[in-house]
Amino acid sequence: MIKVAIVGGTGYTGVELLRLLALHPHARVEVITSRSEEGVRVADMYPNLREHYPILTFSVPEVETLTACDVVFFATPHGVAHSLADEILQAGTRVIDLSADFRLEDSEEWTQWYGQPHGAPHLLSEAVYGLPEVNRDVIKDARLVAVPGCYPTAVQLALLPLVEQGLADPKQIIASCASGVSGAGRGTKLGSLFCEAGENMVAYGVNGHRHLPEIKQGLRRVAGKSVNLTFVPHLVPMIRGIHATTYATVTDHSVDLQALYEQYYRDEPFVDILPAGVFPQTRSVKGANMCRIAVQRPQNGDVVVVMAAIDNLVKGASGQAVQNMNIMFGLEENSGLQTVALIP
Amino acid sequence: MIKVAIVGGTGYTGVELLRLLALHPHARVEVITSRSEEGVRVADMYPNLREHYPILTFSVPEVETLTACDVVFFATPHGVAHSLADEILQAGTRVIDLSADFRLEDSEEWTQWYGQPHGAPHLLSEAVYGLPEVNRDVIKDARLVAVPGCYPTAVQLALLPLVEQGLADPKQIIASCASGVSGAGRGTKLGSLFCEAGENMVAYGVNGHRHLPEIKQGLRRVAGKSVNLTFVPHLVPMIRGIHATTYATVTDHSVDLQALYEQYYRDEPFVDILPAGVFPQTRSVKGANMCRIAVQRPQNGDVVVVMAAIDNLVKGASGQAVQNMNIMFGLEENSGLQTVALIP
Amino acid sequence: MIKVAIVGGTGYTGVELLRLLALHPHARVEVITSRSEEGVRVADMYPNLREHYPILTFSVPEVETLTACDVVFFATPHGVAHSLADEILQAGTRVIDLSADFRLEDSEEWTQWYGQPHGAPHLLSEAVYGLPEVNRDVIKDARLVAVPGCYPTAVQLALLPLVEQGLADPKQIIASCASGVSGAGRGTKLGSLFCEAGENMVAYGVNGHRHLPEIKQGLRRVAGKSVNLTFVPHLVPMIRGIHATTYATVTDHSVDLQALYEQYYRDEPFVDILPAGVFPQTRSVKGANMCRIAVQRPQNGDVVVVMAAIDNLVKGASGQAVQNMNIMFGLEENSGLQTVALIP
Amino acid sequence: MIKVAIVGGTGYTGVELLRLLALHPHARVEVITSRSEEGVRVADMYPNLREHYPILTFSVPEVETLTACDVVFFATPHGVAHSLADEILQAGTRVIDLSADFRLEDSEEWTQWYGQPHGAPHLLSEAVYGLPEVNRDVIKDARLVAVPGCYPTAVQLALLPLVEQGLADPKQIIASCASGVSGAGRGTKLGSLFCEAGENMVAYGVNGHRHLPEIKQGLRRVAGKSVNLTFVPHLVPMIRGIHATTYATVTDHSVDLQALYEQYYRDEPFVDILPAGVFPQTRSVKGANMCRIAVQRPQNGDVVVVMAAIDNLVKGASGQAVQNMNIMFGLEENSGLQTVALIP
Repeated sequence: MIKVAIVGGTGYTGVELLRLLALHPHARVEVITSRSEEGVRVADMYPNLREHYPILTFSVPEVETLTACDVVFFATPHGVAHSLADEILQAGTRVIDLSADFRLEDSEEWTQWYGQPHGAPHLLSEAVYGLPEVNRDVIKDARLVAVPGCYPTAVQLALLPLVEQGLADPKQIIASCASGVSGAGRGTKLGSLFCEAGENMVAYGVNGHRHLPEIKQGLRRVAGKSVNLTFVPHLVPMIRGIHATTYATVTDHSVDLQALYEQYYRDEPFVDILPAGVFPQTRSVKGANMCRIAVQRPQNGDVVVVMAAIDNLVKGASGQAVQNMNIMFGLEENSGLQTVALIP
Repeated sequence: MIKVAIVGGTGYTGVELLRLLALHPHARVEVITSRSEEGVRVADMYPNLREHYPILTFSVPEVETLTACDVVFFATPHGVAHSLADEILQAGTRVIDLSADFRLEDSEEWTQWYGQPHGAPHLLSEAVYGLPEVNRDVIKDARLVAVPGCYPTAVQLALLPLVEQGLADPKQIIASCASGVSGAGRGTKLGSLFCEAGENMVAYGVNGHRHLPEIKQGLRRVAGKSVNLTFVPHLVPMIRGIHATTYATVTDHSVDLQALYEQYYRDEPFVDILPAGVFPQTRSVKGANMCRIAVQRPQNGDVVVVMAAIDNLVKGASGQAVQNMNIMFGLEENSGLQTVALIP
Repeated sequence: MIKVAIVGGTGYTGVELLRLLALHPHARVEVITSRSEEGVRVADMYPNLREHYPILTFSVPEVETLTACDVVFFATPHGVAHSLADEILQAGTRVIDLSADFRLEDSEEWTQWYGQPHGAPHLLSEAVYGLPEVNRDVIKDARLVAVPGCYPTAVQLALLPLVEQGLADPKQIIASCASGVSGAGRGTKLGSLFCEAGENMVAYGVNGHRHLPEIKQGLRRVAGKSVNLTFVPHLVPMIRGIHATTYATVTDHSVDLQALYEQYYRDEPFVDILPAGVFPQTRSVKGANMCRIAVQRPQNGDVVVVMAAIDNLVKGASGQAVQNMNIMFGLEENSGLQTVALIP
Repeated sequence: MIKVAIVGGTGYTGVELLRLLALHPHARVEVITSRSEEGVRVADMYPNLREHYPILTFSVPEVETLTACDVVFFATPHGVAHSLADEILQAGTRVIDLSADFRLEDSEEWTQWYGQPHGAPHLLSEAVYGLPEVNRDVIKDARLVAVPGCYPTAVQLALLPLVEQGLADPKQIIASCASGVSGAGRGTKLGSLFCEAGENMVAYGVNGHRHLPEIKQGLRRVAGKSVNLTFVPHLVPMIRGIHATTYATVTDHSVDLQALYEQYYRDEPFVDILPAGVFPQTRSVKGANMCRIAVQRPQNGDVVVVMAAIDNLVKGASGQAVQNMNIMFGLEENSGLQTVALIP
């Protein structure tokens, strides 16, 4: 049984880790930390967990208790993993970071987008970007994994086959995306209120969102050169779900894109290429670690539209984190991740 | 492996059975029927099931294929199980009916509320009302189980301890309840449209809802006498969930009601009595086979308020159906029913 | 043109006053105050008001600017009107208080429910409870009006005809109510988040909600004696709307309740008795100053069910406040209140 | 008083016309038709209209009653106005068609997209495309106005300034749009159910939506040449609202786009250019005849993003229809259109 610690477990990615790990056959949450909720039972904060975690209680993070576990998940705001990861790694405990702390290779770029100095630049060289569809072999031996952001997961999975094959004109790629409100976290922000986010749709971060450099870095890796990406996220009134609609100019009209995508993701357990003409519904992945993708070239024109849907809290965060753990510890990759999405 | 057939699998209770049984360790869906969707793959109708049922296809109901299974679930409108149950039972296959066909003991009462003659009155004597918290021992040996309705499950579980102990004045009990829209089914009714049910709350069936005689029958059984129940259901804009708020005049102020409820349901795996002062949230059971209950006597007055929350499609239908199957086949009662509710 | 000041205009009742008064033919908002948003244009906070209030700006509340207006609306948390009302009234400006400060006649009862001393008990004798359907004649000459709470408006309008006629057994009346999330205000509370309130229903304040004494006071006035009311509010996932379902034992079965209600509210512009068998939908009053009511005695039994629906921000707050203003200033009672509810 | 007839008044654009015209100072609905609902009072179908239309009743469409009015609104599926418009026009009654029947100039293109022969090609030359921001002068004298579609209104208003000035590279323009569910109408389609559309986002019509040729026609008119537009609509879980996010490559980086847009729409009563950095919320126009637009060039790059929000039932349909009527009859353009959007 893998002993798991979760740092910062009061947010939505924290409770989602608890939900997924509750039924994991080979892992058990031993420690969950929260400075503000010390002494509170998780079952008292999250009534859905009452029968699954009758006694687990939030504690103050302490290195000894964390390093007594086999793996520490960080479900924290950015900056926290920076300060703790080194000590934990040195004690031989592995780290899976759901925050943005280790996603960018370049600490200066990180500083530019996050507005503070990078707290652990010396760890960047060994941090592995935890997108299994790209990095599975490296993840196996990683000590420190940076779980991709929610938008970056959806957009990269949508675009990877095109970009890797050089089929998308890199001069102009558009990612028009939307997120459910849980993407904004459990913090009590005005914009996250039911009466502010309900019956509403609005764009945000149009001038530059922190997920932009992460997506561009991922595409650059497979393209071998920089791509000019315009990324506009929107907030839509649903609890869970990311929907990415990406647009690119196709450089070779002769390629069967449907076949390309099916082939590319043929062996991936958590990527599903939909039949031609069927488009991904976010609810089809609600609660499930899955990315559903459709590819369409409208009226056989120059533009290809690739759509992807994930649950931002699962394949976009906690589910992908567990998937990384499974790979790192040599387990079946779908251990604990077989939940069926909830329809309706 | 128990071979399962589902008759009428295109509705919400049908897809929910598929969801729950997909991960059941001891049962497998072999047959699913639908006259209108013959030949359609369930994965094409329900995209959440793509990886779980890659080949299962709707077929026309035929007695031979149904009786080749160990158990047949009816997820049909009322009247269908009436016409098929007998033949299936005679072939030695058990029947779990999610419809209303066998819920009322009295065929004349059934006829009065459902507006058509009862189609199988000779089976009523052996039909078992599938509320495990009341009838577990009888369910074990049942051939034909009538799964309770969604409102009746919530209201009975809320009131049983009070009524059985004679602590609720039977002259006037109120059940003011609300359901998410999935309770109205997958039929394309005007009132179920997003733009009709959204941002709206409304009562219905105030003059008499079909679940009223079912609830009164259940309460009468444990009370030993008739109770005067007023039941008003409402539609609220959420997908899943039943919330029941019941009001009764307490006949004995000396009883510790919190303790009574905790004791009464002490050994029940799917009933959770919340700590005093905590009230059940429907989302705390979303997707889970669980009924959460709170009991409160406001300002220590004459009236006790008992609240219950279930997921209408799980403990209120398909989950309870699987729970009955587990009991009937001697399995662990929670086999396939350990899903954690989705919060957020 | 009546000069209007609004104290505490950043909340939902504040913006709703602005919305209604924008089109009022005889009133104009001259002053709106907010300490935290001083200098911010209302158009920048509320984008729906951009073309209607291009220059109106939040200012710090000052007695001189307030008393330069004809009427001051308080859209503040409780306690604020206590400290300012006296000075404003002495300057000859009238006060319409949307908060709870002057709703209860008894300052000790107020203290008990609000947990702090009443700040202006000497004003209670002249404060008029602003429910026009009961107090229209007194409101005409009032200097200080306490606008009723949202639940109290719905529940009183539902029960008044019964209670006034002595047709409801006062030993046991139930008000099972539900509110949209805007009833909790614009404060950034965890429970008001989209991801907490969405897809959820839950009761609250079961042991005693602050609207309980207000409702009981109102019913006592017309009944001439105390009534034993159990009031349970619930939160449902919609933005606007109060739905009240009230249950009482009828003392005289011979009365035609439908006719009684139609007669009682015959001349009321903002109460609508629905035809028999039609039940009020909260969306039918969304944005409108209207209370729709239905009365039903299920199966001609002992219990009468009266349902009422209002928009908590309109007839339950700001619309009713404007209705009071219209009465106080001798205007047509429906001035500025003719908005049609938004369906869908 | 302008006498108004509405053909096909049972849908959402019909009830929205009734809502807006209820308060119009110079128009009154005299006739409303529906074959299926003949004899039903609109107040019985739409409870929000009870006090506004106490007696108006659906009747079977007859030419005599329609031509006794000054103007006939068609709120019908496509094909209906084709068959009736000629006769009405010949009687001297004007026609405002909310359907797609007269939106495309080319009857063959219409046939291609709508799958049936155009029923009145001889009227196309005089039909005026009712986008006042482009065609106000022609609308003044029009007998037959084709009200633009909802997406076409939003996308054209977003792109017109750019396209007219030749600032958008016509080789590739993207319109990534989303609609609330009311855009799908009041028909009882599976995909419009609360439990299908709720908690979900999905693209549709990716290979070619009927609004595509309409948008391209409008852009071609102002550009003087064809533009290569990719248009992808999505369904999002809200009742009302269209959000359009358009992407174009800017051909001249020296232009101040914010100033261009403010100048272009300076005198338009129903187009609002938001301050730089503020993005349009669909709720900011909920119920209001308004289009809010923001323009942003992310990181001063090659791509400009223009966002527009409208209420699909108001500026996207019935409000724009009334705006056209006002222009056609020489009224103030904002008569009956001053409703303030509902926030929250």
